[in-house]
Amino acid sequence: MRIVVLAGGIGGARFLRGLKQAAPDADITVIGNTGDDIHLFGLKVCPDLDTVMYTLGGGINEEQGWGRSDETFHLKEELAAYGVGPEWFGLGDRDFATHIVRTQMITAGFPLSAVTEALCDRWKPGVRLLPMTDDRVETHVAVELDGERKAVHLQEYWVRLRASVPAEAVVPVGAEQSKPAPGVLEAIAEADVILFPPSNPVVSVGTILAVPGIREAIADAGVPVVGLSPIVGDAPVRGMADKVLAAVGVESTAAAVAEHYGSGLLDGWLVDTVDADAVTRVKAAGILCRAVPLMMTGPDATAQMAREALTLAEEAREA
Amino acid sequence: MRIVVLAGGIGGARFLRGLKQAAPDADITVIGNTGDDIHLFGLKVCPDLDTVMYTLGGGINEEQGWGRSDETFHLKEELAAYGVGPEWFGLGDRDFATHIVRTQMITAGFPLSAVTEALCDRWKPGVRLLPMTDDRVETHVAVELDGERKAVHLQEYWVRLRASVPAEAVVPVGAEQSKPAPGVLEAIAEADVILFPPSNPVVSVGTILAVPGIREAIADAGVPVVGLSPIVGDAPVRGMADKVLAAVGVESTAAAVAEHYGSGLLDGWLVDTVDADAVTRVKAAGILCRAVPLMMTGPDATAQMAREALTLAEEAREA
Repeated sequence: MRIVVLAGGIGGARFLRGLKQAAPDADITVIGNTGDDIHLFGLKVCPDLDTVMYTLGGGINEEQGWGRSDETFHLKEELAAYGVGPEWFGLGDRDFATHIVRTQMITAGFPLSAVTEALCDRWKPGVRLLPMTDDRVETHVAVELDGERKAVHLQEYWVRLRASVPAEAVVPVGAEQSKPAPGVLEAIAEADVILFPPSNPVVSVGTILAVPGIREAIADAGVPVVGLSPIVGDAPVRGMADKVLAAVGVESTAAAVAEHYGSGLLDGWLVDTVDADAVTRVKAAGILCRAVPLMMTGPDATAQMAREALTLAEEAREA
Repeated sequence: MRIVVLAGGIGGARFLRGLKQAAPDADITVIGNTGDDIHLFGLKVCPDLDTVMYTLGGGINEEQGWGRSDETFHLKEELAAYGVGPEWFGLGDRDFATHIVRTQMITAGFPLSAVTEALCDRWKPGVRLLPMTDDRVETHVAVELDGERKAVHLQEYWVRLRASVPAEAVVPVGAEQSKPAPGVLEAIAEADVILFPPSNPVVSVGTILAVPGIREAIADAGVPVVGLSPIVGDAPVRGMADKVLAAVGVESTAAAVAEHYGSGLLDGWLVDTVDADAVTRVKAAGILCRAVPLMMTGPDATAQMAREALTLAEEAREA
C-alpha cells in the first residue's frame, strides 16, 4: 500500500511513527512543510523536516519533541557571548551539524529535496521524506506589537512571542510562485491513501496545500483522503492551531477544521471521543466521520489512531 | 612604547602573553598570520588569529595551546556521522561559534580586519590584533604522497599528515596579489620596536613578510627589529619549523634562521643558552645576539624572554 502523508512538525512526526507501526509494509511518502524554514546565523534551518527525520530516525529529544537527544548548547552560548542572536531559537550543538551540512549542500547548488535525501541517508527514517517545494517559502504572521502592525516569521511568532498576541493574518510568502518538489505530484498520483496527520491545519498542512498544484493533485487523485483532528475538545492538542485558525476565520473546533478542508478535499475525518457530537456536523458536510481516541499518549495509542485512519479510508473507498 | 609583533599561532600567542606581563603599559599591535586560514564546512577558520585572541582573552585550552577551554565536540561527531569531513581538523562546539560569526560577517561584506576587531570586542585581548591582509592567502605545501607530487593545504600537511613527509616547497598562494590590511603599514611606521616571537620563520613570520609592502616597511621603519629563535638545540621548540626550513633550503639551527631573516631586516636575535655557540656566527652576520633561556615554560619565564628582547632592542637602538 502506498500512503502519502502531509506532515508538519511534532504532531506529524509522532503520527508517522504510529503509522509505521500500524502499517509496517506500507510504502510511505511524507510531504513535509517547509514554510517554517528559517535562516539563522547564515544557516538554513528546516524545523519540520528535521523533526520528522530525527523522530523517525531515532535521534529526537523525546521529551520536548524537537531537537536532538543527548544535546548540548555550547555553540549557542558562545554566539550569545558574541552578542549574536537570535537567542530565542534553541539550536543545539548536534542539531547545528544538520544545518551546516544542509547549508553547504545548498550553497554547492543542490536543491533542498536532494539535500533532504542525503540527510536521510544517515537517519534512515523508513519513509521517503520530500520537502513540499525546493523553492523558498516562509510563513509570516501579521501581528500588532507595541502599537505597530508588523509581519514576523512564524518561528518568531511561535518561539519568541509564544503566540501571546493575536495572529491577524498568516501569509506563506513565496508560496504562490513555488513549485512542488520533484516527486511530490508523482507520489500523490500514485498513492492508495492520503493522510493528514493531526498537524496544524493552517501553518503546516495549509502551507503544503498552498503550493500550487498540490491541493489540486490531492483532490484529483481519486483515492481516499483522511485527516485526524488536531483540535480536541475545542483546543489544540499542542501548538497554536487556535491562534492561526482565528486568523483565517475558522473556529477552533474539530468540525470547523473539517469544513475548512472541505469535502472537495477530505473524504474522512477522525475526531476525538470527547468531540463525538461533531460527527453529525462533519457528516453533514459530506465527509465520513468517526470519533475515536486521538491523544498520542504513546506509540501504541498512536498506532491505533493510524489504524483507525486507514480503516476510515477503506470505508471511504467503498462508499 | 608602541610595539609591533608579527605572530603565528601557539608560540606567538604565548610570547604575547609574556610581553603583556613584561610591558604592561605598552601599546601592542599584533600582525597575525592568515596563511593558515582554511575553509571548512562552508566556514572561514582563522587558526592563528583565534589562537592569539583566545590565549590573550582567557578562552584558550591551556594544555593543547589551541582551541577553546571547557570544549565539547558534539557538532564534529555529528558531521562525521553524516560522512562530512574532514575529520582530521578538530573544531569544537564553542570554537564553531567564532567561525560562524566570522563567516556571517564576511558574507555580509565586512573585511577580515573588521571582523577580527568585532570578535576582539568580546575577547578584549589587550592588544590590537590585525590580520596581515584582508585578501585570501593560503599556504600550500608541495609533498610527494603515494608516489604522486601534490600540493596540500598547510593545515592538511600539519594536522592530517603530521609533517610526516618532507615539504618540498612552501607556497603562500595569493600572497603576491595581497595587500596589507588597513592599519598594518601604519602600525609598523609608528612602532618603537618590532618583535618576531619564536613563531615559525617560514609559514608564520615568513608568510606575513610575503605580503608585499610589509617586509619593506619593517626594513625601512628605522626602529629596532628583534627576534627570538624558534629553534633550540637544532630542533623546533614546537611545530614543524625544521620541515619547512628544509623546503626553503635553510638548516634548522638558531643561527641559520637569523641569517635567513638577514641583517637587512633583523637588528637583534635571541638564541637559547644551549645554542650559545651560535652567538658569534649571528654577530658575524651583522645582527646583535645574546643567549638567554628561550623555553616558554610558564608566564614568568616567557615574560623574562620578552624583557630580554626589549633590552636587546634598546641596545640595537643605541648601537
